[in-house]
Order: sequence, then structure tokens, then C-alpha cells
Amino acid sequence: MFLSTRRAVLAGCMSLGLLATTTASPAAPPAADPLPSWNAGPAKAAITTYVARVTAQGPEFVPPPERIAVFDNDGTLWAEQPIYFQFAFAMERIGQMVAKDPTLRQKPAFGAIADRDQAAMAKLSEKDLIEAVFAVQVGLTTAEYQAVARAWFDQARHPRFHMPYAALTYQPQLELLTYLRGAGFKTYIVSGGEVQFMRVFAEQAYGVPPEQVIGSSLTSKFEIRDGKGVLVSQPALGSMDDGAGKPSNIDLHIGRAPLVAVGNSDGDLQMLQYSASSTRPSLQILVHHDDAAREYAYDRQSKIGKLDKALDEAGVRGWTVVSMKSDWKTVFASKP
Amino acid sequence: MFLSTRRAVLAGCMSLGLLATTTASPAAPPAADPLPSWNAGPAKAAITTYVARVTAQGPEFVPPPERIAVFDNDGTLWAEQPIYFQFAFAMERIGQMVAKDPTLRQKPAFGAIADRDQAAMAKLSEKDLIEAVFAVQVGLTTAEYQAVARAWFDQARHPRFHMPYAALTYQPQLELLTYLRGAGFKTYIVSGGEVQFMRVFAEQAYGVPPEQVIGSSLTSKFEIRDGKGVLVSQPALGSMDDGAGKPSNIDLHIGRAPLVAVGNSDGDLQMLQYSASSTRPSLQILVHHDDAAREYAYDRQSKIGKLDKALDEAGVRGWTVVSMKSDWKTVFASKP
Repeated sequence: MFLSTRRAVLAGCMSLGLLATTTASPAAPPAADPLPSWNAGPAKAAITTYVARVTAQGPEFVPPPERIAVFDNDGTLWAEQPIYFQFAFAMERIGQMVAKDPTLRQKPAFGAIADRDQAAMAKLSEKDLIEAVFAVQVGLTTAEYQAVARAWFDQARHPRFHMPYAALTYQPQLELLTYLRGAGFKTYIVSGGEVQFMRVFAEQAYGVPPEQVIGSSLTSKFEIRDGKGVLVSQPALGSMDDGAGKPSNIDLHIGRAPLVAVGNSDGDLQMLQYSASSTRPSLQILVHHDDAAREYAYDRQSKIGKLDKALDEAGVRGWTVVSMKSDWKTVFASKP
Repeated sequence: MFLSTRRAVLAGCMSLGLLATTTASPAAPPAADPLPSWNAGPAKAAITTYVARVTAQGPEFVPPPERIAVFDNDGTLWAEQPIYFQFAFAMERIGQMVAKDPTLRQKPAFGAIADRDQAAMAKLSEKDLIEAVFAVQVGLTTAEYQAVARAWFDQARHPRFHMPYAALTYQPQLELLTYLRGAGFKTYIVSGGEVQFMRVFAEQAYGVPPEQVIGSSLTSKFEIRDGKGVLVSQPALGSMDDGAGKPSNIDLHIGRAPLVAVGNSDGDLQMLQYSASSTRPSLQILVHHDDAAREYAYDRQSKIGKLDKALDEAGVRGWTVVSMKSDWKTVFASKP
């Protein structure tokens, strides 16, 4: 079925109404533990040791402008099961679009998705599914599309946790973002999720401003409407920010190899390889979802967020693998 | 001839060896004139009045995260005559490539450019010329390409001013960049020039870090070479950052309409229109090259940096037009 597609196009969301209360990541007082939701252990030690190395005067000191940290989003900063949150949004939106205009059923995927026809959905190609996800924004201006997404965030609830998607960000990662920024790192999201969609929640949820969000995209066309210049999404892929597309987009948008790279799936492998290729000391982190009780447990066989090759490479290269179960004291920013 | 192409692909350069001495833009002490190379007049007043309006507490106050300023490069931050500096680089590079591998003559434009055959060059299509300019980087990693460009900057001299291209940045604009940053603006370059090329000089010349340089680009492919991840330029256009491509790229890279937009040609028209569409108070500036004695005089009929429609729109919409001749006390950062 459509869950089989691992294209991070099908990415995250967040209920803005709740962000102010769910994502507070209090600044740690000096000398206090900057990562209170991380248990002591090799992962936490790898992070704090690395930051100490590159910020202290000495041979490994890295000038602040070169301190770039990149984070995947789905499965790295918030949950991605049972389906990428952006895909949950797209499914609901497609249902609304088909109800309004039944001729849309002629498009591949639309009828199957609108009807929640599992058998028909299982037969869809990945191409059809990606087109369907992107189709919800074609013809809309950036502002119009973001308003639709925002409305969905405000009412959508996760099927298992019955929480707004906003609440399903990871508290330890919010602390890590804050800690790195405090150490002079510029923090970016580099995700397969669609870029304008992520910008609806990234600043409030993560403290990451729009210009530090990199994602998949459609092309856009500049038009003057009612005397105002707007960007209208076109039915053509701009870039797919997954796998090898991530380092390409990092090179295009940032122009430096990131020194810290954090991911959770094979779609992040090349981003971590690229980070590890820096001439500066660098740090690669993989979140391993091994906590079925508090979140989900999945890796090599998962259809969403498959972690297989990257896990092997982490072993060979000594990358830091974070066990959600043992390294994180708490999982979500807000209690389910 | 090839000069007829107004695609900012054919963009700027700079001799890094000289930057330290040529681009110093001393921070103004408080209360001192922040724009000492600007003559008093409507252009300077428009700039300082605008900055005062949006930074003072009151109904027009703009929160710092929204203070985004975008600058075109060629003809706006440095000279662009008699040809875009990046094209001067590409011509020299093509000559070297053809000398090394005569079979390259089979490619459109290569033989004509290598031979400096003006008649043959005049017959080339714009597509052939753009391909030739981009061809100098195809197959190179970002680092390799930037090393080639840097070597050119170190020895190239402008045909009229006999100066390194580095010296041909505009002193009043360096002051404007510094002034805006001091007022909390994040300053971006949004140019038709190729992005990796501009990054070779933008940080040292303008204080604009790589991640704030947006330009035209080829696609790139991630490869592992000698165990290191590198990005290799491919023979396919990623985006042409000119005209309507500028607001599209601003939306993709920045995600907010810029409040200050500075350009000098019709290729900047849509970027200025997009800036003027912001719901916040905004400022649009066009540099008018009307100073044949100190630099060049050109506008509506020019093959490089044509300023025609944008000049008309500036008149209708009240955008600020800067006369190089009367508004700028000095032109270049360094004396020719």
C-alpha cells in the first residue's frame, strides 16, 4: 500500500495552536545540564565532548561561521509513524478536493485516497502517490497553501496518541537544537518534507527560521495578482530532498559541509557521509527507533523511515547511534 | 555578438588577494554618518528614513527576523561592463580548456570563444553561450571549480580600469550593506551569477556568508571520491536566477518577501515587485548607471544590464532611483 513509499515528500505537520505550550525549550542556566532529557551514556557524551572540542581554543577550534548543524525532520525531530504527517495532511486534503470536484477522481491516486480504498491504494505507483501529495498545493500561492496546512494542523490528531501533531516533537531534540545554537551553531532542517509546508511550524516548534528550512519543492511561478507579486506552485518537481538530494541541496543552499548531521533513516545516509567528509571535526548522529512502548520500534524492515544501510555505516564509521529507549528520558515535548 | 545576452549567468568575480585591502568598510561610530560615500539627496534620505521607520518602536516597527534585504550583484554591488565578470572568467577558462583538449572545438561556442572570433561569436545563440559559461564547471567538484575561479581572480585585470575585479565593488553599496546589517537586516545576494562562483568572493568582499548567496546553478551529483563525499556539477541547469526566477528562488531559499530589494536592471524587476508586495513597509532601490566618467553610462538600450521596464515602473511606483553620478561621492571601493 501507499505506506511503502519512503519518500520524505510525505512529511510532517504541526498544530500551531498548541505550539506555544508544547515546545517550550527553556534556556539552561550556565553550568546546568544543557540536555536534561538525555540519559548519561555514550550518545550524550559524544555530543557534549564534540561541542567542547570545537568551541574551545585549540587545534580543533572551529570559527563560528563554519558551525553548521543539519537535522532531518521526520523521525528525527518528530514522529513519522504510522505515516509521514504530511501525507496524513495530503490524504485529508485530497478527500476535500475530490468532494468539491469529483472530476479529480480521474487523476491517479485521487479516487483511491479519497475513498480510503486500501486495496486500490496498494496498487498505486510511487510516482502517482508523490504526484498526489504535491497536487494539493499546485495552483496555490505560498500563502494560500500554508493557510490550508495551518488549518489542518489546528484540528488534526495523531491516530495513536490522540494528540495534535504539534505535540509529537521530541523533547531531547529540542534541547539539542537549543544547545547547539548556544554553542554558536546555525541549525538547519534538511528534510524530504515539502519546504513551504515545514515552514508553517518550524520556527515556532524548533526555533528554526524559514530561511534555515530546506526541503523538497515544486517549482513556482511569479505572478502579479491584484497588484501583488505572488509565487504559485507549479505541477513540476523542483527537487526531491532525500538521499543524495540532501547533500546537493546543502551545497546549493548553504555552501559548506555541515559539521553536525542528525538523521534517522537511509534517506539521511548521504547527508551524514557529506558531513563526515568535512575537513573539520564533525559529528554524525542517527536516532534509532527502538521504543515500541513510548513511540515505535522499527529499522531495517520498515516501510517508513527504513534504517538499514545507514545503521551499518554508523557501525563501521563510529557514528553516534541514539537509542530512543535508553538514551532519552522523555520522548515527546508534551505527554501523550 | 555574445554581449547581447542579458542573462546574469554571465556574472561577477573578484581577486581575493586584494580583498583585504580593497573592501574594508569600517564600522561607523554611533551618530556618525553611516553612509559617508552617499551625497545628501533624496536617495540617501529614502534609505535612512526607511530604516528609522521600521526599527523604531511604533506602528511600522518590523521584528528583526523579518528584516531581509536582497541585493543583485552585477551592476548593483560591483561593475558589470564591458561584460559580466563571470563571462570574462569563462572565456579565459574556455581558452585554456580548448588548448588542452582541441576536440572541445566541436562544442558550440567553444571554438569561437577560444579564438576570440568576434564574427563567429556574434552568430551564437544565447543557449550556446550559456552552455559554454556553465561548461567550465561541469564535471568539477564545488571545491575544484572554486579553486579554478580563485586562481583567475588572482591574476585577472579589468580591461579599462586595469584593476583586479576585486577592486570594482561599489564603496557606497558596501556602506549600505553594513548599515542595513547594523539595523538588524540579514543581507542576501540574489544574482543571475552562478552561486558557487559568487561564494568565492562574497564573504570577503561583502560580508555575505555562503548561505546568504543565491544564484543561478547547475544541478549537482553526490559522489564518494577517495572516501570523501563531494558534489560534482552536472550538465543540466538547476535554476536561472534572473527575472521571475529571482522571486521564485527567494521563496525557495528564504521563505519571506524581502523588505529591501536593490537592483539595477530589468532582470531585477520582479524581485523589486515581490519586495513591494510585502505587507510590511518596504524599500525598492535601482542603481542608475549614469556616470560615464567614473564608471559607465547605460540604461534602456544597453545589451548588458538593460534598465528599461524597471525604470518605468520605478517612476510609477515611487521606487528609489540612485544616480551613480550625483548620489555617490565615490564609486569604487578602491581607486582605479
